[in-house]
Amino acid sequence: MQIDYKQAAEIIRSCDNVHILTHQSPDGDTLGSGFALYFALRAMNKRAAVICPDGIIQRYRFICQGYEEEETFEPECVIAVDIADPGLMGEVQQKYENIVDLCIDHHISNTMYAKKTLVNPNASAACEVMYHLFSELGTKIDDNIARCLYTGIATDTGCFKYSNTTPSAHIIAAEMIGYNIDFATINREMFDIKSKERLYLEQHIVDHMETYHNEKCAVLCITEDLCTRLGVDMEELDGVAGLPLQIQGMEVAVTMKEKKPGVYKISMRSAGKINVSRICQQLGGGGHVNAAGCLVTGGLDDAKAQIVEVVGKALGE
Amino acid sequence: MQIDYKQAAEIIRSCDNVHILTHQSPDGDTLGSGFALYFALRAMNKRAAVICPDGIIQRYRFICQGYEEEETFEPECVIAVDIADPGLMGEVQQKYENIVDLCIDHHISNTMYAKKTLVNPNASAACEVMYHLFSELGTKIDDNIARCLYTGIATDTGCFKYSNTTPSAHIIAAEMIGYNIDFATINREMFDIKSKERLYLEQHIVDHMETYHNEKCAVLCITEDLCTRLGVDMEELDGVAGLPLQIQGMEVAVTMKEKKPGVYKISMRSAGKINVSRICQQLGGGGHVNAAGCLVTGGLDDAKAQIVEVVGKALGE
Repeated sequence: MQIDYKQAAEIIRSCDNVHILTHQSPDGDTLGSGFALYFALRAMNKRAAVICPDGIIQRYRFICQGYEEEETFEPECVIAVDIADPGLMGEVQQKYENIVDLCIDHHISNTMYAKKTLVNPNASAACEVMYHLFSELGTKIDDNIARCLYTGIATDTGCFKYSNTTPSAHIIAAEMIGYNIDFATINREMFDIKSKERLYLEQHIVDHMETYHNEKCAVLCITEDLCTRLGVDMEELDGVAGLPLQIQGMEVAVTMKEKKPGVYKISMRSAGKINVSRICQQLGGGGHVNAAGCLVTGGLDDAKAQIVEVVGKALGE
Repeated sequence: MQIDYKQAAEIIRSCDNVHILTHQSPDGDTLGSGFALYFALRAMNKRAAVICPDGIIQRYRFICQGYEEEETFEPECVIAVDIADPGLMGEVQQKYENIVDLCIDHHISNTMYAKKTLVNPNASAACEVMYHLFSELGTKIDDNIARCLYTGIATDTGCFKYSNTTPSAHIIAAEMIGYNIDFATINREMFDIKSKERLYLEQHIVDHMETYHNEKCAVLCITEDLCTRLGVDMEELDGVAGLPLQIQGMEVAVTMKEKKPGVYKISMRSAGKINVSRICQQLGGGGHVNAAGCLVTGGLDDAKAQIVEVVGKALGE
């Protein structure tokens, strides 16, 4: 059942012993909204724990600064943040999928699996929804909460770069950077810093990328062997699929990752004009307009030829 | 003489036939503030022309969309935007340096060369100063002005990433993206898109970068020969100096460009902890805490050794 901010605030006021659930491979928005809620609940003298499937990678550890791990407790109330679908709960799906009391989200694709759902699809981030919920609750923003909310909004808007950035995202950011948060370091950690190995991987990609259709389509092939050889953790691979779109005139970037011999996981990214979700649907996959994926089987050359052909049709080549 | 917003508005109201001056190698902030002022003056039925030394590179051409080149006219009033020092006027310095009536700027280093100067060193961009001046003037913001002001603020804050980003910068951005401007494309053009040649240059840099002091200092050497070989325009070089700071743990990045045999122009960038202005001062140069420069003469190895030594001291190595 969809509810509004007032009703969600009512649930939060009345609940205690809360498990806050973030999605698997947690990013800045699910962690930011989860820990912001934790700090708000703690300020209300409630017991709370944040459950992060897969754990938190090094880059995001700063978000939970100030978090105090409680002894395990049974939750009276489960709140999921930024989780559009129980399938994103990862290793804790079985335990939680049927007992989520409240889901706070911004995905239009939310499957309404929770008992009550507060979803604002116009918000750029779950943290934007959380901010408005805090206004309703009368939560006093402090440095910890400001750091969390800022991080989530910056994450999901690509540091205010993408078209999903709302005026409200900027206005909240204006307020949050008034607190004692080192947003420049946060942004540097989230958007700029790479391991040397990652830089070498990018270099390898530029070097070995194949281009098709008048340089409007690029195809990268990443094998486990390559990652091992360059010493890159699979954790370090996010964003790689979009790399070729940095090149002037490039419209579609295709990344092929060998899952097992003869099976390729395809990630497709668009610079904006081409709907890659539609392309991937033709290959049995799907996704968003600018980011989609599918599985392709066969030999490397065959798989590549299949993909290049459908991309070519979409490009009108 | 330093003046306030009210006095600057008075000057603008009373002047006509205006030459608006931007600095050499114009960037998004000088162009954004210059063209925003142009559109505001045109709306007041004043004659105005924007003078851009060096011309406008392709990436920034979208800013002047809607600009109508006038026949050459003699200015009654000259307004410089984002120009801290007449030395930044490039090829038009001699013509204009002594006749600037009003300078609108945000650099604390402004040399007060103009008859009247409106400078707000707390502003993240000249466009932020321009916005407040427009408020004083009662200028009606339109799509053209919004596009210009947004671009300038995004440019100088690294798309709201850097520590100079003010709450006011976010609040102005919130208002500007409410107009019909394609800020996501602007940001993509300004921050993401690179020529293939530029990507190859970056790859070369990663490959040939030397590191010192426990990988906290990187030294790059860029020769004209290298640029010619890789087919990179010198226009494409901004941002290169900061490239090594992407690497985890890197504190100082030094770029050496050979100006002529035995003379190196040094650009130094800091990730935040080290004051590179102080380091460059020891070598006869200067600049900002995070971005500074100097000239060093001598053979390549000698020049490099000199720099690496002073950086080492600053790093406490």
